[in-house]
Amino acid sequence: MSYFSAVDIITTKRDDGILSDDAITWILDAYVKGEVAEEQMSALLMAIFFNGLSDRELNTWTDRMIESGERLDLGGLSRPTVDKHSTGGVGDKISLVLAPLVAACGAAVPQLSGRGLGHTGGTLDKLESIPGWRAFLSNDEIREQLETVGAVICAAGQGLAPVDRKLYSLRDVTGTVASIPLISSSIMSKKIAEGTQALVLDVKVGRGAFIKSIEQARELATTMVGLGIGHGVATVAELTSMNAPLGRAVGNALEVTESVDVLQGGGPSDVRELTLALARSMVELVGIDVNPETKLNDGSGYEVYERMIRAQGGDPDAVLPVAEYREEILSIEDGFVHSIDALEVGNAAWRLGAGRARKEDAVSAAAGVVCLVREGDAITKGQPMFELHADDERHLQQGRAAIENAVVVSERRVNAEPLLLERITN
Amino acid sequence: MSYFSAVDIITTKRDDGILSDDAITWILDAYVKGEVAEEQMSALLMAIFFNGLSDRELNTWTDRMIESGERLDLGGLSRPTVDKHSTGGVGDKISLVLAPLVAACGAAVPQLSGRGLGHTGGTLDKLESIPGWRAFLSNDEIREQLETVGAVICAAGQGLAPVDRKLYSLRDVTGTVASIPLISSSIMSKKIAEGTQALVLDVKVGRGAFIKSIEQARELATTMVGLGIGHGVATVAELTSMNAPLGRAVGNALEVTESVDVLQGGGPSDVRELTLALARSMVELVGIDVNPETKLNDGSGYEVYERMIRAQGGDPDAVLPVAEYREEILSIEDGFVHSIDALEVGNAAWRLGAGRARKEDAVSAAAGVVCLVREGDAITKGQPMFELHADDERHLQQGRAAIENAVVVSERRVNAEPLLLERITN
Repeated sequence: MSYFSAVDIITTKRDDGILSDDAITWILDAYVKGEVAEEQMSALLMAIFFNGLSDRELNTWTDRMIESGERLDLGGLSRPTVDKHSTGGVGDKISLVLAPLVAACGAAVPQLSGRGLGHTGGTLDKLESIPGWRAFLSNDEIREQLETVGAVICAAGQGLAPVDRKLYSLRDVTGTVASIPLISSSIMSKKIAEGTQALVLDVKVGRGAFIKSIEQARELATTMVGLGIGHGVATVAELTSMNAPLGRAVGNALEVTESVDVLQGGGPSDVRELTLALARSMVELVGIDVNPETKLNDGSGYEVYERMIRAQGGDPDAVLPVAEYREEILSIEDGFVHSIDALEVGNAAWRLGAGRARKEDAVSAAAGVVCLVREGDAITKGQPMFELHADDERHLQQGRAAIENAVVVSERRVNAEPLLLERITN
Repeated sequence: MSYFSAVDIITTKRDDGILSDDAITWILDAYVKGEVAEEQMSALLMAIFFNGLSDRELNTWTDRMIESGERLDLGGLSRPTVDKHSTGGVGDKISLVLAPLVAACGAAVPQLSGRGLGHTGGTLDKLESIPGWRAFLSNDEIREQLETVGAVICAAGQGLAPVDRKLYSLRDVTGTVASIPLISSSIMSKKIAEGTQALVLDVKVGRGAFIKSIEQARELATTMVGLGIGHGVATVAELTSMNAPLGRAVGNALEVTESVDVLQGGGPSDVRELTLALARSMVELVGIDVNPETKLNDGSGYEVYERMIRAQGGDPDAVLPVAEYREEILSIEDGFVHSIDALEVGNAAWRLGAGRARKEDAVSAAAGVVCLVREGDAITKGQPMFELHADDERHLQQGRAAIENAVVVSERRVNAEPLLLERITN
């Protein structure tokens, strides 16, 4: 390995040049070792924000992130492996339903997750509202559970793509999160290192997602699908709408309850629709000829869910935490629900205590928002629109202030937007 | 002062938004206090590199840099104050001749300087080759010397625009030096804080300057002139050519000797021409009706030079350090000198020991290059083109390798380019 200068690498990218494989390898390695300073890496990340990475640069960058840590070996399992990753939305509890459902269809789902930051919440936070459930499994426990149960949702180990953890912390404080190559390499390095054979990406677009336009979503999805396929992981992406919250419940225990409803044949129609669409993509990718709908309807998805929760120490029948403070928000006018702003609802849930501002923060299991109306519903003055849940008066007050403008009421009914927008297969 | 978030400020600039006065004030203040991290500031600097600063943002940014430290009060002097700043060129020893010459015309010249980095060298390094001369003066000593001698060239105190020092160190390692608003605010904050009434900027353009195109030079000059005038400093800029080295000597003691030659009525014609042009601009700006040429010809410029050197402990008659190793570089062909590349000559002088790579490095007083030919000269095979000076064999060898391609010889004589290109007065 030749010697490189960090400043030369930064100015090359700043001036829209192409970084050699060796330069990328050198700087990521030197950064992990602390030989390239945080302020140099942040300048490079900002230059990448502006000038992007070529396909080759991105591929090399992702490779080095994967090879900075361990790779799970999920060969030798009796089932094909397939995972799902969502770019994050408000009320997005799909993983809780999807992982056991796809396992019930015959695949193994190794869903290694992170924690939520900001208004979108995290899958681990949701499951931790179940008494006894534990997020941390050893690699042996993961393999074992995939073989016996078929689904595992747990914390991604510290050994997976460690450069990504260091880079992500830096991006978070330097305004360099929203870059397509940086997002793609971050997500895909972890998913590739996790060892899954196939992957379905749920790329959220809209008010409640960090991606607001379909063009950007398409670019992100295409980039990630390319990286997955290039690394031998069968990958497709679904672009899905995230203007309104997904389902009715936004909050940790509230979303677990709603997920169980869906697994038991009920629940909101949009959660069911999206889960089934993603499940179909997943089983198709690994060549399993089973219709997931039958596994939802016959209760075998729920059975796997129960075993998955028990395998990680949780009691699926336990009573979940309930908020001490509740309040209904009433409509002040007659008409039709024109729109529900997912970002506003997500922020309200966050203020109520369901999310965290910094990664050290604790979250409330019980806090959150239940949406009592859907887009297109007729509504009358005084009718409850939301139910707010909080652990104390202060959080309740903050949530109340945050949700004020979440609903737009119109005189005429508008049709709800479609949930599934586009499929990207490369 | 309201509370700001560093990430919000970074993303605002990243997305080409405008920062409020309060936001700029807050972030520079928080940066100096260490509350905004180096990696956050470097991300902001890179965003400024790409998206620039509006006139108002730049004005506020510069204000805050000035107000981060002390301002010299040069009121109460019996002479008007006028300074010159050059953006840096190879063989640029103009300050050494200009400051005493303009003082001889009746103005006071408070030239507070920095040290050189890279191939262009620094005025302080040059003067430090004079035995006994000291660069560090107190503010009282500066005022006193301006009153009694009329000219002072010394180190800018640590109290002047301290944010700039912190920012400059950061820019140096993060590839964010070459930004017009950042360069302008850095230069002008120090010059405004120095307390001069008037300022002439020598903006160098060409191979040996960091600015390569006349368009960029114009933009930088216009920005700096605007900042100066906006802060009550009468400012003009001269755009001057820096394709070939200025004069014959490049190196610390070598340039002092050449400067004395010019002050004594001899020396290279280009050094004399540029010095007189800048001197005319300076005296004109402060309304002094004296032709500097008379003060050069009658020896009064040299007299002030002697007093200026003595006032700072130096002996103007002392024998300067001489290099132990010397070598002539001979032409390998007949023809005319088509061009001498200032950057190559500057790099050679640097390799010979005249410049520093890091600010902790020491420089050699004696090392450097003497150019024995000028552009347009007829040259024959075997004729000496350069004389290299070094303290040891290793440096000599490095300099020899670096100067190899500095001269282009052509069959026909070309006219030398003009030195003075444009004047920017806003």
